[in-house]
Amino acid sequence: MSEYPTIVDIRGAAERITPFINRTPVLASTTINRIAGGEVCFKCENFQKVGAFKIRGATNAVSKLSNDQLGRGVTTHSSGNHAAAVALAAASRNAKVVVVMPRNAPGVKKEAVAGYGATIVYCDPGHQAREAAMAAVVDDTGAHFIHPYDDNDVIEGQATAALELLQEAPGLDMIITPIGGGGLISGTALATHGLSPQTRVVGVEPEGADDAFRSFRAGKLIPVDEPRSIADGLLAPLSERTLQIIGQHVENVVTVSEEQIIHAMRTMWERMKIVVEPSAALPLAAILAGKLDVSGARVGIIVSGGNVDMDRLPW
Amino acid sequence: MSEYPTIVDIRGAAERITPFINRTPVLASTTINRIAGGEVCFKCENFQKVGAFKIRGATNAVSKLSNDQLGRGVTTHSSGNHAAAVALAAASRNAKVVVVMPRNAPGVKKEAVAGYGATIVYCDPGHQAREAAMAAVVDDTGAHFIHPYDDNDVIEGQATAALELLQEAPGLDMIITPIGGGGLISGTALATHGLSPQTRVVGVEPEGADDAFRSFRAGKLIPVDEPRSIADGLLAPLSERTLQIIGQHVENVVTVSEEQIIHAMRTMWERMKIVVEPSAALPLAAILAGKLDVSGARVGIIVSGGNVDMDRLPW
Repeated sequence: MSEYPTIVDIRGAAERITPFINRTPVLASTTINRIAGGEVCFKCENFQKVGAFKIRGATNAVSKLSNDQLGRGVTTHSSGNHAAAVALAAASRNAKVVVVMPRNAPGVKKEAVAGYGATIVYCDPGHQAREAAMAAVVDDTGAHFIHPYDDNDVIEGQATAALELLQEAPGLDMIITPIGGGGLISGTALATHGLSPQTRVVGVEPEGADDAFRSFRAGKLIPVDEPRSIADGLLAPLSERTLQIIGQHVENVVTVSEEQIIHAMRTMWERMKIVVEPSAALPLAAILAGKLDVSGARVGIIVSGGNVDMDRLPW
Repeated sequence: MSEYPTIVDIRGAAERITPFINRTPVLASTTINRIAGGEVCFKCENFQKVGAFKIRGATNAVSKLSNDQLGRGVTTHSSGNHAAAVALAAASRNAKVVVVMPRNAPGVKKEAVAGYGATIVYCDPGHQAREAAMAAVVDDTGAHFIHPYDDNDVIEGQATAALELLQEAPGLDMIITPIGGGGLISGTALATHGLSPQTRVVGVEPEGADDAFRSFRAGKLIPVDEPRSIADGLLAPLSERTLQIIGQHVENVVTVSEEQIIHAMRTMWERMKIVVEPSAALPLAAILAGKLDVSGARVGIIVSGGNVDMDRLPW
C-alpha cells in the first residue's frame, strides 16, 4: 500500500465528488496551437464551482468525515480559493465552517467566503497569527482542520482534474500545472502516474515564489523568505509531503517572470475568450516564453482558476 | 418552396460548414440560474473561429460560390466581426478578399482583418462613402459581395448556431439573441421554427439602436437616425428581409439600457469566467433587468461574440 493516493483511490474520489462539482470542458485554440507549435488542450477549472479546482479537494476531504466530525464543524485558514471551497463543500453537508482570514484580506474574498455561509474569524496578518487563531478555533470547537494541500484527501481530490483530462485527451505527451503549495501538481502527478505513465508532468512557478524550483533541484525544502507574485494563489510553500510526491513523479519545474505571466493571462483572455486568474496562466507562460519546448507534442494544461477582481486588471 | 431558408437548407449549411468551424460548447452557471429563477444555457459563439458566430454565415456563403466566382474574389464592407469572418472564410478557399473599412476603424480590427490575409480598401467614414468604395471594388474586380445579413446564404449559416443549441438542449422554452441587422435572429428563428416550433424566439436591442423594436411593433421598417450603443455589433439597421422573418417567427423584441448591458457583460465575465463583447450580453441583460420573465423556464442564449479591446473595458 502506497502512503500516497493511488489511481484506485483517485477513482474513488472522483465517484465521491462528481455529484457536487462541474464537469469542466477541455478547450483548444487554433491560434495558440500555431504559436506553440504543438497541440495544447486546456482543462478549464476556471469554470469549476467556486471558480477553481480547489472545490475538488475540499469536497473529497469533507466527504470522508464522519457525521460526528461533521457535527463539530470544519475549519481552515486561507484568504483565497481554498477557503471558499471548504465553505461550499461543508455547506453542502450542512456542517458549520469557520474560516480564519487575515484582517487585511481583499473585501471581495471576505464576501465570497461569507456568501457561502462560513463564519469568518479575523486575525492579524502573518503566518504565526493565523496559526494561533486557527489553533484557538480547533480548541474551542473541535472543528476538523482541512489543510489547503498538505493532506492526502485534498491531494486525492485535486487529482480528479487530471483524471478527467486524461479521459478526454488520452495519451498526452505532457501535462503542465502551476505550483503553489503543491496540492494540484501532486494530485496531477499521482493520477498521471497511475493512468498514463508515459505522460510527463511539469510544474511552473513564479520567479518570485520559486521554492518548488529550488527544492526540486536540491532534493529538500528550501523556503523563500518573502514570496511575491501577481499569482496570488501560488505564494504558499511546499510541504515535505508535496515535495516528496513532486520528487518522485514530476519531470521538471520551471519558472516564469511576472511579465510573462501577465502576457500569457492576457493571451488567454484575448484569444481563448476565457477569464483566468494570474496563477492559471503560468503553464501557457512557460510555453510562450520558451521555457518548455512543446513543438510537435500534445500537451494538457490545468487551468487552475478564474477569480479576478475586474477593477484591478494587470494591464 | 419558401423564399427563406428551411430546416432542410439549414441542415445542409451545417454539413457544409462543419469542417471549417468550431463546435462551441453550451455552458451554464448555477449562480445565474439562481438569479434568473430558471435554467439558462449559453451557446458560446465567443469561442467560435474569429471570436463570433459570423464565421458561420460567411463560410456558408463562400461555400456556395462557383470556382469562377471564387476566382474573381469576394468583398464586403464592415468594420467588425463580419469582415474578419469573410476574410477567413475566403482564405480557406484560396479566394482573394477585399474589405472596405472606414479610415477611422479601430487599429485592432484593421490588424485582425489584415491578419486573415484580406486587402483593405479605406474609405471615409459614413454609409455613403462606404457604399461608393464598395461599388468601385465590385466594378474593378467583379468580386462577389457578401452582405453581413441581408442575404439568405448568410442567414442560413447563422441559423446553424441555434440548430446545434437545440440538438444539445432539446425542447427549450425560449431562445434569446441580440439584434443588429437581424441576421442572427432570422437564422435562429428559422431553425427554431423548423426544429422546435413550440420554442419561442425573442430578440433584444440596445435602447439607443432600437429600430427592430420599433419596426417589429409598426410592421414596417422604422430606421433610427444615429444609432448609438456600447454594443458596437448591433448598430446596423434591419433590412426588409430580416424584418419579414422576424415578423413571422419572432415572439417579441425588447430593449435594454447601456447600464444594463454593461452589468450583464460584467456578470458573465465574473460569474461564468467567459469573455464576451457588449453585444453578446444583451440577452442576459434583458433577463437580469426583468424585461423577460424566465422563471421556471428552460432558456437558451446565443452568446454572439467575444471580441473586446482589453485596454478599453467599460468598467
